[in-house]
Amino acid sequence: MTKHNHIVVREIGSFHVGGHLTRLDGLPLRERVSTTGGPVHPIDPNGEIIVGQLYVQYVRLAEPRADAPILMWHGGGMTGVNWETTPDGRSGWQMAFLRAGFDTYVSDAVERGRASWAPFPQAYPEAPYFRTAKEAWEETFRFGPVGSWHADPAQRRSHPGLNFPAECFETFLSQSVPRWGCNDALTQTAYDTLIQRIETGAIVLTHSQGGNFGLTAALTAPDRVRAVISLEPSGAPDPTRQDPGRLKGVPHLFIWGDYLDQHSFWVHARPAVERWRDALNAAGCDVTWINLPAQGITGNSHALMCDRNSDAVAAIVLDWLRTKNLLA
Amino acid sequence: MTKHNHIVVREIGSFHVGGHLTRLDGLPLRERVSTTGGPVHPIDPNGEIIVGQLYVQYVRLAEPRADAPILMWHGGGMTGVNWETTPDGRSGWQMAFLRAGFDTYVSDAVERGRASWAPFPQAYPEAPYFRTAKEAWEETFRFGPVGSWHADPAQRRSHPGLNFPAECFETFLSQSVPRWGCNDALTQTAYDTLIQRIETGAIVLTHSQGGNFGLTAALTAPDRVRAVISLEPSGAPDPTRQDPGRLKGVPHLFIWGDYLDQHSFWVHARPAVERWRDALNAAGCDVTWINLPAQGITGNSHALMCDRNSDAVAAIVLDWLRTKNLLA
Repeated sequence: MTKHNHIVVREIGSFHVGGHLTRLDGLPLRERVSTTGGPVHPIDPNGEIIVGQLYVQYVRLAEPRADAPILMWHGGGMTGVNWETTPDGRSGWQMAFLRAGFDTYVSDAVERGRASWAPFPQAYPEAPYFRTAKEAWEETFRFGPVGSWHADPAQRRSHPGLNFPAECFETFLSQSVPRWGCNDALTQTAYDTLIQRIETGAIVLTHSQGGNFGLTAALTAPDRVRAVISLEPSGAPDPTRQDPGRLKGVPHLFIWGDYLDQHSFWVHARPAVERWRDALNAAGCDVTWINLPAQGITGNSHALMCDRNSDAVAAIVLDWLRTKNLLA
Repeated sequence: MTKHNHIVVREIGSFHVGGHLTRLDGLPLRERVSTTGGPVHPIDPNGEIIVGQLYVQYVRLAEPRADAPILMWHGGGMTGVNWETTPDGRSGWQMAFLRAGFDTYVSDAVERGRASWAPFPQAYPEAPYFRTAKEAWEETFRFGPVGSWHADPAQRRSHPGLNFPAECFETFLSQSVPRWGCNDALTQTAYDTLIQRIETGAIVLTHSQGGNFGLTAALTAPDRVRAVISLEPSGAPDPTRQDPGRLKGVPHLFIWGDYLDQHSFWVHARPAVERWRDALNAAGCDVTWINLPAQGITGNSHALMCDRNSDAVAAIVLDWLRTKNLLA
């Protein structure tokens, strides 16, 4: 890091992993106009298309202070944009980790963002879900209590003491993308492929739906995953089917915010993660479980990296990484 | 730029422009499993969703050598990834322009990549097109003659002397995203909004379908657009409806590759651009029109920034910008 928090960058670049050609047949011909006022030309939608790829954008520092990069895996219905500029216009976690000395690999998982998506029902078996503002506000992201959403910002209510900048909600919602409920296996395969591609090993930082992918990736490649950091994972491996003993060499950090007992999705989702935590502990693994409000850090939404105190939460993660000797 | 081609970066970040809430009604309830093994929870797809936003990722240098940033606008069925690492793994044009001293603003247009897309037929009137490998190979990108595509790489034929790395075709195809034929107005509005957001003014660099958006953005805001660089635009404004005289202060550069007369799409698309060029010239505007093969640079596909000689073509653009006093 230079003066003024500048960073010296070796390379910004990207790649896809996991794509394969698949063939579509039997679709009717169409006609398309490709540009305003341009000619009409015929389109045959039949033939090979590419399916199942995941996108990764990396920023490599000239002189990283960590041996292994940090992989940043977003949650459901979102993309890697979650780690970029916060909704209220501050530097996001990608910059925080770059400034701390990590090379960053921010991905868009299969079906989302720059990873693209494939036709349904031909390639994906079902139609996607589009996030409604109400669902984001009242349920997944816990910005306000059930029944508090309103299309008119002046009539919306947020949780008392909320750290998320409620006035920037539309900015945050702009980061949403459609999601499917049928692509977990395709996504896990692509993430596992990504892990194998990074020969130094990697630290995996996940949010929400990314949590299960990260915890599972560590089980699959405990020699490659140097640590797993799970921000409010919405799921976890099943200890009756997976052996947490494989993870003795992989430190785990879990971080949780507020209002979890007021939202049905979280009431039902968290026990699976607690069960996995307990299994990791019983197997003698290195587990840190942080409830932020218990530490006096209150008002945290599900979007921990987008809340007003995002820098303070990032600092907790960075301190933990130093204690694990993963950052100089 | 420091030694080893490193760059000193002030900030990497992003934002969306142009999104607005729109309401969906009358859709049936669904049930969703959000993570492998997780609980089933009900989803109401009705309510407000966000539509029409465009994504922009910027990299701001500590000490840019240009007064205005360069905006990089991809073509149809693609995203800003086109400007990143080339299919054969070299630094792409984003890095080339950063190393030359420009702040870069790489966008994903409405409906694509990190801009997201909206449901059809509720928000968009029609279904999208998925790019087939055959269409990419034989038509839009002109990698091989009509009839030369084969799913087996060993049986594909490319144009003799082609500069695109044909062995990396699947890597390139992984960058594809679905496209619609109905969103030009929404996209133009978002791009025009982006232009207004950058107070220094901006240089607009476009590829293919991005061409018409860039040329039109200059007409709308000739005070803000400092130059327009169009790599093989697939369309252009209509001089019987638009006044090219507004553009006397905006230098224009057009660059074209090879094989254009062998592919029906291009035979039909290019005359509109030539007509606009002629109108710009007749109005006394500053127009540079480069046919690369006429300069002895041959084998160029439509993916000029992804071909093996991408650095050489970038250098032509950078030299032109210097002659226009837009780069020190």
